[in-house]
Amino acid sequence: MSSLKPTNIDELSVATIRCLAADVVAKANSGHPGMPMGMAPISQVLFSKLFRTSGAGKTPWINRDRFVLSNGHGCALQYIIAHLLGYELSMEDLKEFRQLDSKTPGHPEAGHDTPMVECTTGPLGQGISNAVGLAIAQANAAATFNKEGLELFNNFTYCFLGDGCLMEGISSEACSLAGHLKLGNLICVYDDNHISIDGDTACSFTEDVEQRYLAYDWHVLHVNDGDRDLAGMAKALEEAKKVTDKPTIIRLKTTIGYGSKIQGGAGTHGAPLKADDIEQLKEKFGFDPSKKFHIPQEVYDFWHQIQERGAGYQKEWDQMFEQYKSKYPAEHAELSRRMAGKLPNGWEKALPTYSPSDSAVATRKLSETLLSKVSAAVPELLGGSADLTGSNLTRWSDATDFQHPSSQLGNYSGRYIRYGVREHAMGAIMNGLHAYGLHIPTSGTFLNFVSYAVGAVRLSALSNFRAIWVATHDSIGLGEDGPTHQPIETAMALRAIPNLNFMRPADGNEVSAMYKVAIESAKTPSVIALSRQNLPQLEGSTIEKAEKGGYVLKEVENADVTLVATGSEVAIARDAAAELEKKGIKARLVSMPCFRVFDIQPMEYRRSVLPSGQPIISLEAYTTLGWHKYSHVQHGINRFGASAPAPQVYEKLQIAPKPFAEKAEKVIAYYKKEKIPLVSPIELTAAFE
Amino acid sequence: MSSLKPTNIDELSVATIRCLAADVVAKANSGHPGMPMGMAPISQVLFSKLFRTSGAGKTPWINRDRFVLSNGHGCALQYIIAHLLGYELSMEDLKEFRQLDSKTPGHPEAGHDTPMVECTTGPLGQGISNAVGLAIAQANAAATFNKEGLELFNNFTYCFLGDGCLMEGISSEACSLAGHLKLGNLICVYDDNHISIDGDTACSFTEDVEQRYLAYDWHVLHVNDGDRDLAGMAKALEEAKKVTDKPTIIRLKTTIGYGSKIQGGAGTHGAPLKADDIEQLKEKFGFDPSKKFHIPQEVYDFWHQIQERGAGYQKEWDQMFEQYKSKYPAEHAELSRRMAGKLPNGWEKALPTYSPSDSAVATRKLSETLLSKVSAAVPELLGGSADLTGSNLTRWSDATDFQHPSSQLGNYSGRYIRYGVREHAMGAIMNGLHAYGLHIPTSGTFLNFVSYAVGAVRLSALSNFRAIWVATHDSIGLGEDGPTHQPIETAMALRAIPNLNFMRPADGNEVSAMYKVAIESAKTPSVIALSRQNLPQLEGSTIEKAEKGGYVLKEVENADVTLVATGSEVAIARDAAAELEKKGIKARLVSMPCFRVFDIQPMEYRRSVLPSGQPIISLEAYTTLGWHKYSHVQHGINRFGASAPAPQVYEKLQIAPKPFAEKAEKVIAYYKKEKIPLVSPIELTAAFE
Repeated sequence: MSSLKPTNIDELSVATIRCLAADVVAKANSGHPGMPMGMAPISQVLFSKLFRTSGAGKTPWINRDRFVLSNGHGCALQYIIAHLLGYELSMEDLKEFRQLDSKTPGHPEAGHDTPMVECTTGPLGQGISNAVGLAIAQANAAATFNKEGLELFNNFTYCFLGDGCLMEGISSEACSLAGHLKLGNLICVYDDNHISIDGDTACSFTEDVEQRYLAYDWHVLHVNDGDRDLAGMAKALEEAKKVTDKPTIIRLKTTIGYGSKIQGGAGTHGAPLKADDIEQLKEKFGFDPSKKFHIPQEVYDFWHQIQERGAGYQKEWDQMFEQYKSKYPAEHAELSRRMAGKLPNGWEKALPTYSPSDSAVATRKLSETLLSKVSAAVPELLGGSADLTGSNLTRWSDATDFQHPSSQLGNYSGRYIRYGVREHAMGAIMNGLHAYGLHIPTSGTFLNFVSYAVGAVRLSALSNFRAIWVATHDSIGLGEDGPTHQPIETAMALRAIPNLNFMRPADGNEVSAMYKVAIESAKTPSVIALSRQNLPQLEGSTIEKAEKGGYVLKEVENADVTLVATGSEVAIARDAAAELEKKGIKARLVSMPCFRVFDIQPMEYRRSVLPSGQPIISLEAYTTLGWHKYSHVQHGINRFGASAPAPQVYEKLQIAPKPFAEKAEKVIAYYKKEKIPLVSPIELTAAFE
Repeated sequence: MSSLKPTNIDELSVATIRCLAADVVAKANSGHPGMPMGMAPISQVLFSKLFRTSGAGKTPWINRDRFVLSNGHGCALQYIIAHLLGYELSMEDLKEFRQLDSKTPGHPEAGHDTPMVECTTGPLGQGISNAVGLAIAQANAAATFNKEGLELFNNFTYCFLGDGCLMEGISSEACSLAGHLKLGNLICVYDDNHISIDGDTACSFTEDVEQRYLAYDWHVLHVNDGDRDLAGMAKALEEAKKVTDKPTIIRLKTTIGYGSKIQGGAGTHGAPLKADDIEQLKEKFGFDPSKKFHIPQEVYDFWHQIQERGAGYQKEWDQMFEQYKSKYPAEHAELSRRMAGKLPNGWEKALPTYSPSDSAVATRKLSETLLSKVSAAVPELLGGSADLTGSNLTRWSDATDFQHPSSQLGNYSGRYIRYGVREHAMGAIMNGLHAYGLHIPTSGTFLNFVSYAVGAVRLSALSNFRAIWVATHDSIGLGEDGPTHQPIETAMALRAIPNLNFMRPADGNEVSAMYKVAIESAKTPSVIALSRQNLPQLEGSTIEKAEKGGYVLKEVENADVTLVATGSEVAIARDAAAELEKKGIKARLVSMPCFRVFDIQPMEYRRSVLPSGQPIISLEAYTTLGWHKYSHVQHGINRFGASAPAPQVYEKLQIAPKPFAEKAEKVIAYYKKEKIPLVSPIELTAAFE
């Protein structure tokens, strides 16, 4: 390889992208030049010939093609493309790559300031799974809103992914499901550069990827010269678009760091190229090696035409949407509402309420009752379960499954997804569903198995995406399945994630309150932990109180102690309070269904719930770690659970009224004896938060 | 299907297992009868014709065949087989299925009292991945210890798995790697019963499993009548044993709940059969429907022969081991040591020590130095990384890769595993490696991506398995990669898992101390969090002090404040103490590399580290949640991180000497002003733990 001087505008643009990627990473002195340099040709073809977007400065067009960079470490490429496509991402932004508070962070972060980033990627395997979510959302939107001659939704979702994404199990989960669902609107390009961080993929990744995707029932293509064969890439992408009942993966053989002196090696993957290497690179491509961050005017001119074509797409669509408005005013209004991210007026009236005389019911069952009502009031809810439908009770009775019609099991307008036993993909697919812009995804599994998906859950939180987990069987209360299925650490692990609502309602009104908060939290995901076992309807609970995250369930003048609990343990704390009352000990009772929501209440309110003046003791059938923030003394489970009928497990682990009341007595006595002043932990939060 | 009366002893035994499984689940009134009834025939064939184990009452024989029930919910089957094979699992134990403190919990729990359970399964996908670990361990043991004519290690690992396991991404990760590694000693049986909890697999799982496994380069077989074709099953298993350079999967078509009135349906999966159904079942098989928990004497006699044959296997092996002793005394002594679970005498002398004059080094680099020495001293260490070798620095310089020799990249005696980007499988494979009984697995990834594997990590802890995670790039200190890669919640999430050491050493001596604890904790897994960035060698740190989990780095008489920190923030706290000293404020300094290890020290020691009398302020570049257990006020990061050079991220998020010193001043002033007595939080632990 000596001179590789471009002979036409496409080649010139490819060379420009390659050199620019090297410059971007070099200036940051950090990042991944190899992938952008290797994937520049396919990007040129995709974004200049096929990709339909509305270009610069616009509110994102709802029917734009979606792009997800699953190998997100190569984001210099996406930022460069965004710049060329006219998004609000300037050359200055490119120079700020990986710098503090820039628009161009080290991996693509959705929900913040970077245009063209649909989903947060970088953690491998997430992006391809997000893309499956985007494709499902598109198919559902099309089936729901398209009308004869008015095809409002027909966009494609494109995704680039690498070896790393393919090795991660989450991609297997998502792609198996995508094949099952026959998502013909999903087109993926696998960057087969034979290099991962440890070196040649021969050292750990020798599976036959094409055969694997055929096994998933995908449409599988390959292009053997991803470095130069632009026509071949265009042909493959066009062919992919024509196959409407299968997702497509194109295996594209590329050379990582193409043009570098060390091209084809792991050395180009995760570190800047050296200065002299970048100089010879530019020379090889016919550029002035002294110029940095250079885009020739003809390349800008070329992309300007692409931008104008894109603006035209949206203009056409806007006209179609006007026609739609006149022909289908109700659907237009509904779609406009969903596009604006507004909930239906008065939807919250569908939330059930309960009084203490109502019978004891498992909160998972109360959730089912709620979903049967709210699913009708909030049509953007898109439910599902990871193969635990009958246990999670997540499927409302008149739901239609989201399935390809040929399955005869449902259709694409269906609002219930059979995810299979694929929790991690489910979490990432929910992120894609949210990202499309028209849905509120909800999904179910056991609380313990949200752990399988926490890699996706933290990205929901980081991306400010509203994804709602219905996490049933939320404690040792699941009984016989035993410690393999009983969460001990899970609640606190989720509470530790910033911008995530972990919720554990205690009864019917709290279930309604938590769903209300979850559905109204447009920028925050929620995990709603629900019991397998029946729980009584509590005296003192209301939606209005519970939606503050923590509240006084029973107030007592001159109390001796405050008992604070969550979920299934609130009734146990209540019964402990009754035991104490028999002995003349006055106990206040606080229910705390959501730490995070409580924490954002005014300090005076929080003080009123957890005041100084008496010891505060917490009760929860989980680890006590973390409860010290609100309580002086904790009662919980600092070991794994046990396999036995639930009441026996509760008894063995001392999560019961009597041992809890006994502990409360001891705590009261201790404070009296030691004469330690009873300052609420909340006071320290008040002073220093 | 009317009468299905057995015509020979095998059929009689199969029918016995089926009826017994129905009885076991019915008595518990909880559990999964369908799978055991469907998989009884293959179990009969496998365990009576092929499986080599040493039978009743013995110390587990090191060369026994391993069996893993990946679809662990069907464990009634395994318990019945254990009973028939003569393990210490009685009919009474079967009657105690899923009861408190029984030997027969709701899912197989390893590391506790249940015989024949190699690994804890039930959480789907774990078992098949454990089996890959067991197979790797066998291959390594064979390559390390076998000699011409003295094949000490030649056992097979058998695994049953279902649709659920195949849907979980972890199984894809593990099986892709198993194919790459050409593990011919691994034989899996896929229970293709077409049923998952949501119903027919047609609703979510329609991939071509055989083709998928061919893509992984497995040997793929199928048996179409798994209900009755015992000869076909035997043939397939025998054929599998003959293929030595590929793992085998046998797709076995079975009928879930075979014999039940509702056989073939999801109704038999997760709930007991009704009494009348069990009666007709027994009649159908020619049994007295009134007899429960019945094993005909001829079936016991049959299995007694199998037990005797098994005892013979071990006797032969013992004789071979004696020959081995005389011919290879050094290898015999080494192997005997490892079989006894004893570490080499004086291994800990290989641990490096440092003094404050030594240069600042990243703890990941200190870990590399340590591993280069300890790997020689402790030959049972079996390292690896999830494709981050050059970042994790987990590969000692003279390591050989564990690879099939045909790859020319290593061999089976190699002690470094290239896991690929497969964190979850890596965690489960480590559990299998531990379970084999001869290895201490260590493996590397970024701390943030231990989250991908937490489903396996919690099972290490539950199983009392020593698996060691080398978790580098442990904070915002990784800098430019940004919040997608920066753990905030991860440390506390791991600390919340019972029986898990989360460790965060601050310098070289602490790195040595943490490895010492991790390697010596035979029944506890550890996650060692290590910095990307350089850290100074601290005045006051020693292995002896640090291995207590928390210790005083700098004592001061009449201190005004105690500062407690971990890892990279200890030096920041030290510098804050220096800032305070300039103002005449005396600060004690505590390093707390491991909560769990600190928590098991005597209370007087803990009091001496965190005494009453001055405010205690914690510093850690993670969520503050959980720190209230040890400190009055917390300084940390209750948001996601940022993409920028590490020093800028630290500054932006106020994790620096100056803001921390300022906070300390405020806290001291607050306590003085409010006149709140300074009682250490440890006192409440002392009173109520």
